[in-house]
Parts: sequence; C-alpha cells; structure tokens
Amino acid sequence: MEYLNHTHDINASSWVTSANAAESHFPVQNLPFAIFRRKASGERWRGGVAIGDQILDIANAYHRNLFAGAARDAASAASQEAFNDLFALGPSAWQALRHALFALMRQGGPSDTQMSTLRECLVEQADAEYNLPARIGDYTDYFTSLDHAVNCGRLFDPANELPPSFRWIPMAYHGRVSTIGVAGQTFRRPKGQFLPTGSREPIYQPTLKLDYECELGMFIGPGNQAGERISIDDAENHIFGLCMLNDWSARDIQAWEMNPLGPFHAKNFATTISPWIVTMEALAPYRKPAVRADSEPQPLSYLDSTENRSSGAFDIRLEVFIESETMRANGRKAPLVSATSFEHQYWTLAQMVTHHAAGGCALRPGDLLGTGTISGPTRIEAGALIELGLAGREPVQLGDGEERGFLADGDAVIFEGHCERDGFVRIGFGKNYGRVLPAVAPSIDTAGASRGETPEHLSV
Amino acid sequence: MEYLNHTHDINASSWVTSANAAESHFPVQNLPFAIFRRKASGERWRGGVAIGDQILDIANAYHRNLFAGAARDAASAASQEAFNDLFALGPSAWQALRHALFALMRQGGPSDTQMSTLRECLVEQADAEYNLPARIGDYTDYFTSLDHAVNCGRLFDPANELPPSFRWIPMAYHGRVSTIGVAGQTFRRPKGQFLPTGSREPIYQPTLKLDYECELGMFIGPGNQAGERISIDDAENHIFGLCMLNDWSARDIQAWEMNPLGPFHAKNFATTISPWIVTMEALAPYRKPAVRADSEPQPLSYLDSTENRSSGAFDIRLEVFIESETMRANGRKAPLVSATSFEHQYWTLAQMVTHHAAGGCALRPGDLLGTGTISGPTRIEAGALIELGLAGREPVQLGDGEERGFLADGDAVIFEGHCERDGFVRIGFGKNYGRVLPAVAPSIDTAGASRGETPEHLSV
Repeated sequence: MEYLNHTHDINASSWVTSANAAESHFPVQNLPFAIFRRKASGERWRGGVAIGDQILDIANAYHRNLFAGAARDAASAASQEAFNDLFALGPSAWQALRHALFALMRQGGPSDTQMSTLRECLVEQADAEYNLPARIGDYTDYFTSLDHAVNCGRLFDPANELPPSFRWIPMAYHGRVSTIGVAGQTFRRPKGQFLPTGSREPIYQPTLKLDYECELGMFIGPGNQAGERISIDDAENHIFGLCMLNDWSARDIQAWEMNPLGPFHAKNFATTISPWIVTMEALAPYRKPAVRADSEPQPLSYLDSTENRSSGAFDIRLEVFIESETMRANGRKAPLVSATSFEHQYWTLAQMVTHHAAGGCALRPGDLLGTGTISGPTRIEAGALIELGLAGREPVQLGDGEERGFLADGDAVIFEGHCERDGFVRIGFGKNYGRVLPAVAPSIDTAGASRGETPEHLSV
Repeated sequence: MEYLNHTHDINASSWVTSANAAESHFPVQNLPFAIFRRKASGERWRGGVAIGDQILDIANAYHRNLFAGAARDAASAASQEAFNDLFALGPSAWQALRHALFALMRQGGPSDTQMSTLRECLVEQADAEYNLPARIGDYTDYFTSLDHAVNCGRLFDPANELPPSFRWIPMAYHGRVSTIGVAGQTFRRPKGQFLPTGSREPIYQPTLKLDYECELGMFIGPGNQAGERISIDDAENHIFGLCMLNDWSARDIQAWEMNPLGPFHAKNFATTISPWIVTMEALAPYRKPAVRADSEPQPLSYLDSTENRSSGAFDIRLEVFIESETMRANGRKAPLVSATSFEHQYWTLAQMVTHHAAGGCALRPGDLLGTGTISGPTRIEAGALIELGLAGREPVQLGDGEERGFLADGDAVIFEGHCERDGFVRIGFGKNYGRVLPAVAPSIDTAGASRGETPEHLSV
C-alpha cells in the first residue's frame, strides 16, 4: 500500500510512556491536532498534538526552534489560534510536520538537548481546554449512509424507502456555522414548530423528539476557486483530517419544516465536534475498498476511480454512549447504545469532496463537511436514536429501568472512535461529548456553546 | 408615524448637487453604506455613504475629526474593512451616525471649515469599486412570497400548490457563504446532475435551466446568543439594513437533488448582492401594513404583533432587466422583464428574524438573510424567469427576436430598486448586476467572484 510509511510502524513507541499503553488513543503513530490552552489560564489558543495523556505545544516547540525546513513553516502555521493557515498549506507541508513530530516524539528520536526542551513543551491533557480547530467559513452536512437512509425511509414511509437521487449523489445540505461547538458543548432543548399528533395546526414548543446523529467531520485543506472542479483522485489532498461530529436533531420539528427546503430549526441549534483532528496520513492503514455492490447503480464517471474503489473507504469504529442525569448522580457508567464502522458508508470521503466542488461551489481552508449519520447494516449499528428505538416505538434500554425513545433533559451523548487492524497500532479519536439542558430560556448559560471542557471522567 | 424624523424631511437637500436630482437614488434622506475603495488604487477597503454620484469616505472624515460622541464611535467602526463592528453596535449608534452624516451632507448643515474638509472626503462613484459589506458568518435564504410559492407549485404539481408549512413558517434554508459576491460578479454556468427528459438515470453536465431570483438581503446587526429568542417587536433592532440579492438558481439540478434536503448545487455556485445597504431608518417612510388577509391562517403568537400587522411590510419597488451579449454588442438597452414590490411578501422582515432565533440558533453581526424570491400577484410581477416564462413554455420576449426560457451564456441580470411615496423623496438601492459565463472550466477568471465592478453604463 503506497499510503504507508515509517510513521505507521507498529514497532515505534514514544518516550512519553502513556502513549505506549495498549488502550491509548494517542500513540506516536497517531499525532492528531487540536487548538488548546491551559484551563483558566488566560493563555492564548494555539495548536498542539496529542501524545498519550499529554499535548505537545507546537507553538512553544516552534519558538524553541525544534523544527526546520518545511516542517518549521507548517509548525509556524500550526502555532496560530486556528488552523486555517496550516490547512491551506496542503499535504506535503502536513506530511513534513507530521514526520518531524514523529521524529521528535518517538523513543530514540530526539537528541538529549531536544528531549529536555520537548519535556518543557508538554501540557497535560487533564489541564487543557479546547477550541474549534478553525474559523469555519461554511459547514456542509451529508446524507451518505445507505443503512441510515433505508432505516429512516422505512420509519416514515414503508413504500418509498429512498430519495430517488440517493444512489447517484452524495447528498448534502448547508448547515449552520454559528452554533458549532467543541466537545463539552451544552445547549438548551430547542423550541420549534411541529404538528401535535392528530392536529392539522402546528404548535410552537420545545421539541419532544430530540436526537443525536453520529458522524465524522472533515476539515478542508486547500480549497478550490468557484467554478474549478476537484478530481476524485485529487480529492483527499483537500482533506486535512477527521474529527467526530454530533449532528443534534429535533425530529418533530424536522418532519414539519423540511418539505421542500430541508432541515433548518431541526438542526441549526447545535453541532458538536471532538477537538482532535486525526490526519489522513494517520488513517492510511485503515483504508478499505469502497462498499458499493455490483448490483447497485455505479457512480457517474466524475465520482468514480480505480483508487476510490480499491481504497476509498475507512474502517473507523464509532461507539455511542448515553449518560443520563441519574447516572451522573449515581456514578453509573454510561451504557453503550450502538457501535458501527464508517467502512459501510455508501459514499466515500473523496466522492463527497469531489461532488461538493463539481457544481461550481468554492471550498475554503477550514470548511467543515459532516459525513451524515453513520449507520451499519444491523440494528445495533444505527447512528441515531430514531433508528435504534424505531421512532420511539421500542425505546432503547439504558439499564436500571431507564429507557429512551428520544433524549431527555440532562442527557449527555458521548461518541468514542478508534481504528484497529492487524499489524498496526490502534489509534483513537478521543471522545466527543455534548449535553442537553432544559428549554427554560431566556436566562441561559452559553459559555459552553463555542468551547467546552471534557468532564474529568471522560478524558481519554 | 413614530418611525419618522427630520432625516426624512422632503425639503432637505444636499450641497452635493447631484443628490438633489429627481432621478437620484442617493439623496440626503437615503445615505446607504458600502465598503469601497478607488479602482486599481491599492487603497485599503473602508466604509462610505452614497450621496448623489459621490461617496463620502467615512474613514477619511473620521480621521479628520468630523464626528463627535456616539457618531464618532460608530464612524470609527464604519472605517474598517468590513462593517461587522458597526453592525454590532445597534440602532442607537447607527442613528447617531446617520444623523451626524445628515447634518454634514445637507445643504446649510456644515460650517465653512467642515465643508472644505468634507469636499476632500468625497470620492466619485465612477472611480470606485466595492467589496462585500461584511465578513458574512452565515447566510440564510427564505421562501416567503406566497405568489412565488403558488406560481412554482403550479408549475411542478397543479394539485398541490403549497408546502403544508408555508403559511405557518417563514421557511428558510442555509445557503453558501463562499460564493457570495458583490454586484459585478461573474460566474461560470454551473454543472450538476439532472435527469434528461424521459430518462431515469441522471447525467452530469452544465445546467440547461439557469435562472435568477430577485430578492432583498438583510444584514444582521446585534445577534442573539444560542438559545436566546428575539421578540417580534425587537426584531428590526437586529437588522442594519437591506441590499438587493440575486439567488442564482439551476432549476434542472434543483429538481433532481432537492428531495429531501433542499437545494445544494442548484444555488451554491453564486449569489450576488448590491453594494449599498439602505438602513432601516431610511426605509421608514415606505412602511405598509402586513398583507396577510383575514381569511389566511393567522401567525402563531411568537410571530405576531400589532406593530408588525400595522407597519411590518415595506413598499420597496424592484425591477429586473436582462441584458444579452447581443445587446451589449449592439449598444441596445437591457429590457425590463418584471417589476414588483416587496409589500406583497407574505412574511415580514421582523417575522423572518424572529423565526430564525426562535429555535435556538445564534445570529451574529454580519450574517446575511435573503428574503426569498419577491413575486407579486400578477404575471409581470414574478421575480424569477421560471415563473415569467412558465418553465420555458412561454419564453420571455426581449425584443429584436431574442427570447429567454432560461438564461443564456453572456446574459447579465440587473436589478434596480427604489422606494417612493407622496410627501417623501424617492430613494434608491442602486443596481445589482451579475453575469453568467460559459461553462468551460478549468481555466477560468474568478477575479470577479468576491468583488466586482459595475460596468460604466450601469452606474447610477
């Protein structure tokens, strides 16, 4: 596999020993990026990479001259308050920085002098808080899981399972940037219009059908000029990396408002992303052939390539946990409610990027693209509560007598993501965490809306 | 009318004599704002107000101490490269600046010393180019004209004229920020997927049904925190002012892709706005009662108020002209193809803003909200070609043997807007101008995508 190099070597370990634990999300082979600072420090935001339970402060390492050449330029860009300039540099700069970081963080890599400087550039993850990775110019959310589409189609209309263009287009809508928050985000249960059962006139009140959607988010690197296309084999060069994304949804509002313009209030109240961005290079070992069966309509040529067919999918395992107010009070662990892999997705990341640019729309560095709900072929693999609980008809059992058709006030939804494959080290995405507050406006705490802190018991 | 004050006085005139001409869009009663600089000058962008055929350079006037008190703070914010900070200040600051500008620009207002300084702060509009008025964080586009909705509904499905929620919700979708350009924008004819007539499989090629939509755009002033609502009677305090907006649309792509998530490629290739933002205070004389008939369902209480009913609509007259390549070659004037007024709109500006925040979504200063196509009750009042030409079945006649079912390559679409009422001076929006280039990627000129110049013959 041409995608692999020495940074994927299973035998490499780090002098940060916590990175070498079997359960660590952040071994030296991963090196994901986040914007961070020490909690309650008044420090400025800057870029860092995760290594074990530590963060290497890239800004500090840059100022102390630990980088040279192309890696130094990339480290300079990664030292800013947001990664937009780093994203704009493109894959060769990203690789130079990753390889330099790998050399510095691996056991036996740095010189003694470098090592003592590096130790001073470490910040404990337990002491850190995170910000959005970029100034997000535009946010697009896709609808690309066949299993999710079939599941939802059946719930609403058994006769007509799929929108007619689902198999031809990696479908997408424009989402709301202003309410995207980083893990730890809290938000008020949204209000909106919906039809009460049996009524022909809508009411305006807090949603009764609050849901989550388990997705991945792509951060865009170099963009395209309006009117300029991105070929399918070039598409991944425009993706810096992936995070986890929770596309919170209000199903009753969605049902009433979305014909014909798509979701608006149903989704624009909050979107939560995990702070760590796992790079495309770190994900290389977990590539898979795209899943589309020969019996399916094959993609139009602009969405098709040999490379995309053979290695365009990624086996990224995602798990969802629901933590109720009662569980937090009683110290009970949040139960797993679903587990699946992104490898089942009907459309690949490359196809999403290529389609995005194919109409003439400009992508810009720092744009965020959500994959859409990631559901697999079996019921436990569904990426949203509406599928798991059949729209409330068979509520999900959380243990201790608790069950959920939809989310209750106080519920936190936690995503955990990781990749594993024989012959390679396991790498992780950390955790994504968001929590719904009661809909009792107007006096609300919005401090967590744009940045958040992962509660102590949730740190990786 | 409590909205009126001395800045609306029909007897006021300006010492800039071109402002006093009957046909001028920019008398002293208007004073709209734009971000400008001298063409090909390398000057930095800054704020200005239009007066006759001139621009008062606010940055220059600010640095030369022509403002005091609250007006001075607002002028400082208006001197920046974008108006976001000015927008964030809110209505009392905007009014202080407007009233100071009115005092400076009116005949008999300034002292002799002020006058000589002011003259040095004038820039001819013919020498200027314009930029987007703000760093736009999010763009939302509405669908709020009953006539447009009925016209389009009939074209696609005579049995089912309106989406069920149309009369209950000022419907909206999230649009694309990256391709919003200012008047003068050119763009390549977009490509996309659509179904050829009689086929069940889509093709990917340049749209055959390129259209415009004549809208107004609102620039948001102070925002709201996520989860915090905006009452209907406070809503207009969150609107700095209005421009004209062309929501270019590809109808064949739209028909194939929009079920169920709404328009994507059909609209995200380009959106063109006029450079001048006419303030809400300047628009006060042209208020009208909201149009909703007693026989219609009445709005839910959060969307209803006595004030909105009595004066929530605005009589803003909009005219659309189509200019073909042939007309430009032959020096023939672009013919008028439609003319209507925003007073017919089913939902008011205040209702749009209130609904936007009602679900928990945060608005931020500089956000742009499009009203949706503005169509009136008769055929000539339709705000899109698809309605005027009955989806191509009765093409619009442009004279000299030219006709259009949809737009041809080289076509420019020009909007002109103004307000008039007995007892008040006529004020205008200037012109909005955008032009479609052939779909011959990949080597394209995108210089006009983010900013543009109004061709000589189109300046007001």
